[in-house]
Amino acid sequence: MGKPKKAAVIGGGVIGGGWAARLVLAGVDVAIADPDPDAKRKLDAIMANAERAMARLWPGQTIGDPGQLTYEDSIGAAVSGADLVQESAPERLDLKKRIHQEIGEAASDDAIIGSSTSGLLPSDIQAEMPHADRMMVAHPYNPVYLLPVVEIVGGQKTSADAIAKAMTIYASIGMKPVHLQKEIDAFVGDRLLEAMWRESLWLIKDGIATAETIDDVVRYGLGLRYAQMGQFMTYRLGGGEAGMRHFLEQFGPSLQWPWTKLMDVPDWDDDLIDMIASQSDAQAKGKSIHELEEIRDNNLVDILKALKANDWGAGALIQNPAEDRVKSGDQRLPDGEVLETWSGRVDQNWTDYNGHMTEFRYLEVFSMATDRLLVWVGGGPAYVETGSSWYTIETHIKHIDEVAAGKPMRVETQLISHDAKRIHLFHKLYGVEKGNLLATGEHMLMHVDMTAGRSSPMPDAMKALCDTIAERQAGLPRPDEIGASIGLRQK
Amino acid sequence: MGKPKKAAVIGGGVIGGGWAARLVLAGVDVAIADPDPDAKRKLDAIMANAERAMARLWPGQTIGDPGQLTYEDSIGAAVSGADLVQESAPERLDLKKRIHQEIGEAASDDAIIGSSTSGLLPSDIQAEMPHADRMMVAHPYNPVYLLPVVEIVGGQKTSADAIAKAMTIYASIGMKPVHLQKEIDAFVGDRLLEAMWRESLWLIKDGIATAETIDDVVRYGLGLRYAQMGQFMTYRLGGGEAGMRHFLEQFGPSLQWPWTKLMDVPDWDDDLIDMIASQSDAQAKGKSIHELEEIRDNNLVDILKALKANDWGAGALIQNPAEDRVKSGDQRLPDGEVLETWSGRVDQNWTDYNGHMTEFRYLEVFSMATDRLLVWVGGGPAYVETGSSWYTIETHIKHIDEVAAGKPMRVETQLISHDAKRIHLFHKLYGVEKGNLLATGEHMLMHVDMTAGRSSPMPDAMKALCDTIAERQAGLPRPDEIGASIGLRQK
Repeated sequence: MGKPKKAAVIGGGVIGGGWAARLVLAGVDVAIADPDPDAKRKLDAIMANAERAMARLWPGQTIGDPGQLTYEDSIGAAVSGADLVQESAPERLDLKKRIHQEIGEAASDDAIIGSSTSGLLPSDIQAEMPHADRMMVAHPYNPVYLLPVVEIVGGQKTSADAIAKAMTIYASIGMKPVHLQKEIDAFVGDRLLEAMWRESLWLIKDGIATAETIDDVVRYGLGLRYAQMGQFMTYRLGGGEAGMRHFLEQFGPSLQWPWTKLMDVPDWDDDLIDMIASQSDAQAKGKSIHELEEIRDNNLVDILKALKANDWGAGALIQNPAEDRVKSGDQRLPDGEVLETWSGRVDQNWTDYNGHMTEFRYLEVFSMATDRLLVWVGGGPAYVETGSSWYTIETHIKHIDEVAAGKPMRVETQLISHDAKRIHLFHKLYGVEKGNLLATGEHMLMHVDMTAGRSSPMPDAMKALCDTIAERQAGLPRPDEIGASIGLRQK
Repeated sequence: MGKPKKAAVIGGGVIGGGWAARLVLAGVDVAIADPDPDAKRKLDAIMANAERAMARLWPGQTIGDPGQLTYEDSIGAAVSGADLVQESAPERLDLKKRIHQEIGEAASDDAIIGSSTSGLLPSDIQAEMPHADRMMVAHPYNPVYLLPVVEIVGGQKTSADAIAKAMTIYASIGMKPVHLQKEIDAFVGDRLLEAMWRESLWLIKDGIATAETIDDVVRYGLGLRYAQMGQFMTYRLGGGEAGMRHFLEQFGPSLQWPWTKLMDVPDWDDDLIDMIASQSDAQAKGKSIHELEEIRDNNLVDILKALKANDWGAGALIQNPAEDRVKSGDQRLPDGEVLETWSGRVDQNWTDYNGHMTEFRYLEVFSMATDRLLVWVGGGPAYVETGSSWYTIETHIKHIDEVAAGKPMRVETQLISHDAKRIHLFHKLYGVEKGNLLATGEHMLMHVDMTAGRSSPMPDAMKALCDTIAERQAGLPRPDEIGASIGLRQK
């Protein structure tokens, strides 16, 4: 089945509110029941966070038709007619049993009933309720509107049909349902978290490291791997070309070493090695270590860029190897008539749904080429810090040929003309392999006194460097594209 | 001190090679010593990975001047004159002691000597070597050229001066050195990893979940939090407005619950609660829960976008709420003369070093506006799948006003003219708060038969919708910007 038409959210705290936000923004009508008189205010705050996140994910996109959000006075009224019932009440078994009794009495025969409990067993919660066959644990992670994983754990009475239906329902709202084979206290995620937590408590109590140091080791290190690959896939790469079995055989003995205060370990025998190695093979779906390394590095680069854009954590550390030299002004104008202002490749993330470099990336490349030329005439980032800058006031791009991801490109730049306040530039973007012209960019830049907020003459030294470029390029032909206009009637 | 001038890398496997790549790309000369006859081939592969990653981080940027990489036959020759010596030999104490003896004999008095060991104690390694006061553990994570964290652990003989100097040296090459207060087997990161690993082995052995399921719980869930905030900061947010102390008091009892097979737990007393709560306060540096939630969500959104660009993990799940409707063609042309084709905000990551929306993002917005109009005439993603598409062949942008991050904007679009194969569009981008015109975009689009690789007439139904727009907009004045050209001489 597809998306639920109506969902009931029972309990509207941080988790319940996160469910409501995810469901509403996915276009599902939500009826919420929560005895807290402050529930609406809290939910409004969560909805605002979720809407803000969605607007950043899809800038300028209409968020489809959001679902209707209604508040009900009783669990029964909220549950009535819902395809999905999600309970997120406090973690007390007696309370949850009572709530699920009410849910079961009001639920339709084919509703899926999920509990957000992070530790209680579904068999205990469902023991006496009606419709127990439809009830299961569906344990999400905070913030529910952004994190996709949900652990699906059936109890003794849960039907296979309900589990199968739940897997499609949660996937339909953008989640990643993972089905655990057996019920167990705390399921999988909280077990892993609890193990790390207990180890961390020892590290703090024993004075090895502070909370901040422990967090830093995570967010500058292993967390960057965990955001894209889990432990087993990461270790598969750690084994290198020799693969997972080799890694396991090497790593096994450490189970006997005093590497943790938590010492109850399973027997490290051939059966366990076989089980893990074959599960790891299945998980890799035939991808070689080299392919997985490339995927890992691509993901890491883009995660680091994402964090850099927010000036946070590992991203804030990234050093641009050229930046020091640019800032210190140590970027001299190269000799010669032809100025190569950019060379690089079409990034894999620069393509559109046609598989070609998407149009705004052409301007990104031209913009980088312009920045390089500005550095050469003394107008780079260090100059901007003095309070003046060059603003692009006009741009004219002609697209001539398409180019695919990974292909090398280069930009040649011609200074068409300049006066005291303006620079008129022309960029030619070439494919390197075929030497074909991909696009041209004609740009007018204005020198601006940012403090005064108006155009101003550039400094003499900068003007002299522009004069030098103009002299050197005096022999270049004036490109046909210069001064051209767009229009159907010209043809 | 700043960057080292010369570094010696002793052992060139996955970790040593990663060190060499990070150092060389940071502009440091590296002398490498490794007895493996295959060392150069392996290192070349790692260098290629690292160079590829750097090119993606900084597209088209000159990677400064990379350091020189030389191979030496002996440890002594590699170490001679190095400011930093990094040993990454196999994890055998006798071997490491022998290597550090040689390193100590050849090292200059002020060299920093780091061992990449992931578990051996620095006091054991340094016990008998010369220059033991300069030796410490400096434990990185794979891939060293991308992951910044390095655990700095001194031994009994390590001087405070050497630790202080190491903290600046490793930071100078873009790393995050974290100093542990005491030496301990496996340090911090591998303790956390080992705790999770041991718990995971139980989960597999007991048949609760497979390796893939466990990894999925990590990469679709907790790993996305760990990439930006560690455990303690995450739990601080979990406590909501009531803060970390409240969270700890609630969470404490779970230490006595059977939530892990690893049961040796510290006493959960007021001292431990005080210690953690105050360390968490220090770490938050005065940021409120609400501020931290916003940071968390911004990071999550950008990490998810990063993974989406690579069609991997949690990113591959992100649903565009509008996409279903666009794909199914259910996006009808709105009525009226004025067509609003885009509205949204300047994303916080769209600004340049002047703090304004950077130039290529204007084209990104115009491009989204064009896409919306194409959807309305039946030329959206579903149409592209039939083998035809609209390509932008020419673009002319005029910048009129600047706009800062977070500001709302909207685009109005006018169909200037069209024929069988071409559409001539004009976008006006307005700031919503002041109603001021920020920029205009004039675009010529060509209808292309992608299979034949040439222009082709658009379908009649699409042409009819263009005719409808043209009729409705017949009363709009022709913008002055249409058909304009760029040039200094016009002024």
